[in-house]
Amino acid sequence: MDLIVTLQCQDQPGIVHAMTTAILDCLGNIIENQQFTDPTTNTFVMRTRFETGLSLHDVNTKLNSVLNKFKPNLSVRSVSEKKRVLVLVTTESHCLRDLLYLQDLGELPIEIPAVLSNHGDLKALVESHGIKFIDQSGLVKDAAEAQLRTLVGDLKIDLVVLARYMQILSPGFCGELSGKIINIHHSFLPGFKGAKPYHQAHARGVKIIGATAHFVTPELDEGPIIDQDVAHVTHAATPEELIATGRDIERRVLSRAVRDFAQDRIFIVGDKTVVFHN
Amino acid sequence: MDLIVTLQCQDQPGIVHAMTTAILDCLGNIIENQQFTDPTTNTFVMRTRFETGLSLHDVNTKLNSVLNKFKPNLSVRSVSEKKRVLVLVTTESHCLRDLLYLQDLGELPIEIPAVLSNHGDLKALVESHGIKFIDQSGLVKDAAEAQLRTLVGDLKIDLVVLARYMQILSPGFCGELSGKIINIHHSFLPGFKGAKPYHQAHARGVKIIGATAHFVTPELDEGPIIDQDVAHVTHAATPEELIATGRDIERRVLSRAVRDFAQDRIFIVGDKTVVFHN
Amino acid sequence: MDLIVTLQCQDQPGIVHAMTTAILDCLGNIIENQQFTDPTTNTFVMRTRFETGLSLHDVNTKLNSVLNKFKPNLSVRSVSEKKRVLVLVTTESHCLRDLLYLQDLGELPIEIPAVLSNHGDLKALVESHGIKFIDQSGLVKDAAEAQLRTLVGDLKIDLVVLARYMQILSPGFCGELSGKIINIHHSFLPGFKGAKPYHQAHARGVKIIGATAHFVTPELDEGPIIDQDVAHVTHAATPEELIATGRDIERRVLSRAVRDFAQDRIFIVGDKTVVFHN
Amino acid sequence: MDLIVTLQCQDQPGIVHAMTTAILDCLGNIIENQQFTDPTTNTFVMRTRFETGLSLHDVNTKLNSVLNKFKPNLSVRSVSEKKRVLVLVTTESHCLRDLLYLQDLGELPIEIPAVLSNHGDLKALVESHGIKFIDQSGLVKDAAEAQLRTLVGDLKIDLVVLARYMQILSPGFCGELSGKIINIHHSFLPGFKGAKPYHQAHARGVKIIGATAHFVTPELDEGPIIDQDVAHVTHAATPEELIATGRDIERRVLSRAVRDFAQDRIFIVGDKTVVFHN
Repeated sequence: MDLIVTLQCQDQPGIVHAMTTAILDCLGNIIENQQFTDPTTNTFVMRTRFETGLSLHDVNTKLNSVLNKFKPNLSVRSVSEKKRVLVLVTTESHCLRDLLYLQDLGELPIEIPAVLSNHGDLKALVESHGIKFIDQSGLVKDAAEAQLRTLVGDLKIDLVVLARYMQILSPGFCGELSGKIINIHHSFLPGFKGAKPYHQAHARGVKIIGATAHFVTPELDEGPIIDQDVAHVTHAATPEELIATGRDIERRVLSRAVRDFAQDRIFIVGDKTVVFHN
Repeated sequence: MDLIVTLQCQDQPGIVHAMTTAILDCLGNIIENQQFTDPTTNTFVMRTRFETGLSLHDVNTKLNSVLNKFKPNLSVRSVSEKKRVLVLVTTESHCLRDLLYLQDLGELPIEIPAVLSNHGDLKALVESHGIKFIDQSGLVKDAAEAQLRTLVGDLKIDLVVLARYMQILSPGFCGELSGKIINIHHSFLPGFKGAKPYHQAHARGVKIIGATAHFVTPELDEGPIIDQDVAHVTHAATPEELIATGRDIERRVLSRAVRDFAQDRIFIVGDKTVVFHN
Repeated sequence: MDLIVTLQCQDQPGIVHAMTTAILDCLGNIIENQQFTDPTTNTFVMRTRFETGLSLHDVNTKLNSVLNKFKPNLSVRSVSEKKRVLVLVTTESHCLRDLLYLQDLGELPIEIPAVLSNHGDLKALVESHGIKFIDQSGLVKDAAEAQLRTLVGDLKIDLVVLARYMQILSPGFCGELSGKIINIHHSFLPGFKGAKPYHQAHARGVKIIGATAHFVTPELDEGPIIDQDVAHVTHAATPEELIATGRDIERRVLSRAVRDFAQDRIFIVGDKTVVFHN
Repeated sequence: MDLIVTLQCQDQPGIVHAMTTAILDCLGNIIENQQFTDPTTNTFVMRTRFETGLSLHDVNTKLNSVLNKFKPNLSVRSVSEKKRVLVLVTTESHCLRDLLYLQDLGELPIEIPAVLSNHGDLKALVESHGIKFIDQSGLVKDAAEAQLRTLVGDLKIDLVVLARYMQILSPGFCGELSGKIINIHHSFLPGFKGAKPYHQAHARGVKIIGATAHFVTPELDEGPIIDQDVAHVTHAATPEELIATGRDIERRVLSRAVRDFAQDRIFIVGDKTVVFHN
């Protein structure tokens, strides 16, 4: 089996040694290994990919018996087991399309059992990919969120992706799914508040358009940042061209964040993320 | 002669035609020509580089006689005439060094008759380049600004560059030199207020570090943006490493902005700039 | 009407003046104007976008009467008139998908009357977009090219896009459609000859993966370059991951090149292109 | 003490476990740890930074006793111990200046005991930094290389940097210093052979200018690649402007490569490098 182990706990001597002892004990051959200690919170995180002849159950037992003393947040998963992703959209399709496209190519190890929307616009697109489309356009907000909560449980969802979903989720729901909701939003230098941010950016003459993928949290305006990118623009770009450029960055940054999540590369440490890129 | 003409006025029919008529009348051969109409303010800007056998004086006369009816902001300059730049610094040298380095290489068509500072730290560096160092470390703010104002006049300064100058200039002075002071500052997504911005950015786990070169204005926190750039960073970077990355972006962005100014490529239109890159 | 004029001819005094005279005569209001003189070939190129109340026919007549003396390659086109594009594919879909996606969003002013392939794999994808799929998988090369030639005429094709088309077109055909066939191919530093270039790049440990969009010519291995871009990679990327990164760059670079073509921004000057980005 | 251990050997089970056992035995606290197995050569490389109260000598003894069975290439070094670098230049100063600038800022943990040149041009620049300048302009090639070989020994040089050194070193010398000579050179897509590469790139209309830092080897035209980067250029850039852009990329890429070497981040594995960026 090809397995990925992730571990997060307070930093203390002996963790890596214990982990490698346990993997050696599984006759495991380490393929990738990354670790980091966050000095601010003294948190240790580690991601190890290894091959072993043992079953997932046996590996889990061995690792837990050796590592439990560190009180870790520990996960062992087969590389072939895909994360189950529920995508939430409104009317804009660019982020959804990129996820579907990369999934079709086999570059995104996720399954999308359903796409949910507060509008009906993207029904045909979603169904043309053989994916269930859940139309909440007639529902009031409380009923919509109740249905969403049920879906997350029934469909065994690992990750909710807000792919330009223009509806605010309640703090309660965000809290329940802490670390399991990823959002994408535009980012400018300087930042702009209020409506029509690309028009504001145009009025201000920015030379850069950006996007940020981040986890959604109940407490913060904007949760831990996962990935960011920008594109250069000039005075000649119209607001519509800035929006088009923004779409291109948004889809790329969101897809990268979802891929990193799907490959267990992201750790939330305090208000930040540790992302082990390959 | 190799000349650069810049023109800015309200947009109206016939400007380009009038300009090209005038240049043709100077037996001029156009090498570069760029123009833009800002739709928000209906402002027309144009930069034309051409070769002619006529003198600067004669070209000026001809162009003015043909173009005056558009009430333009018109400038004609020989490519070989260097802009005179006064650089203001405090203790950090990275931006100053890059300007000196590019000037040494002949890539920055500017003359730096003096560097002024509110600290003495960079005296030796400046003087080793044969440039006068004006040390204002003992002066109170009003006296310092009065001396600065005198210098700008006496040294026939075209541009004041704040190369990590950690002193605030008065609104009055900024107003007098409107469009003639360029500043560089760090930029983050999201933005941070207050002290130690790189430490805040580190605490927030940003994945991008940026810098913005802009004109200094009395009214705005941050005047028209000239250029911006970013670098990618990871969770592993310490605040000190973020600062080092920031330095690298700052010096590059500021040097590019100064070069664009030196080549008459920048126009201020409302709160924005038009920059004609080549 | 919103029109785009493009002009290419030997450089000589008075061209811009003549053009602006003619546009003024059409009561035209210039929105964009870019020009360049290539010093090597002394070729002058110009792209002007302007609004006028006159008809396309009348503008054409006026411009030709004024500009004919320069023996230009002159084109006048309405911005609303879309270029007709024939896309050629084999089995890889990433470039085709990006073109279809951008076209759906309205960001690519092209019409795709048909997609032609030497394989049947992408038939369902193409037809799901309501586009005719021409399957040449049973044809020998001569018959295939004959059919292609007929299609280009019958469908009034302005541009043939080789979107990972793994079949070599004859020099004769490339010559007939000179300047009307765009290809995308991977680019590495250093370059690699022969099969499996991404595996060679992996073996060589390159830190950058790139792609080049270029015109196809009969004489050269690789015709005039339109656009290029790269992505950074590390030692940890497998050949498959390099290929995935390559796909992402290829689709972006090809789509940008097709957009620039569709907006009349590209001029072929000798072995090079002039591309007027906005 | 703050130590960096690097290890390279054939991959086999138990290496990480043995290393972490040894570090735990040194009462070491791991700060950074990165490892990689190259699947082609089955080579394992590892870089670990840790703090310990033991002396360098004692750590060395412990690590060797535990790890010797893997027949590793093992190095233990104090972070505060700077690599000794001999810089070779000809007439171009941009790469040398960037190294000196970053060293001045404390961002490059190296010592430069001397700069050697086959020309006298950069003598004043080097000496103004208090560094010894060795002028070989009068020497024949054999004598020059003999002196260079002696210097490398006498000055205890860890790394020779060819900072635009326009003289070819003999295969013998390159072999003796295998893995200890870094060169920078321009890189284009496509590549160009022969003189005046920037002029060739200009003639070919490339849209990207790049640079590659690599180890110098006797066997290959171009040894293992350490780092690469590019900048976008347009048709409007003259050959001189391409050269200026190239200088900017060259100095950045070379400085990054030297920094990675100075921090023990680079491993040569077959024809490739593994570089552990932070």
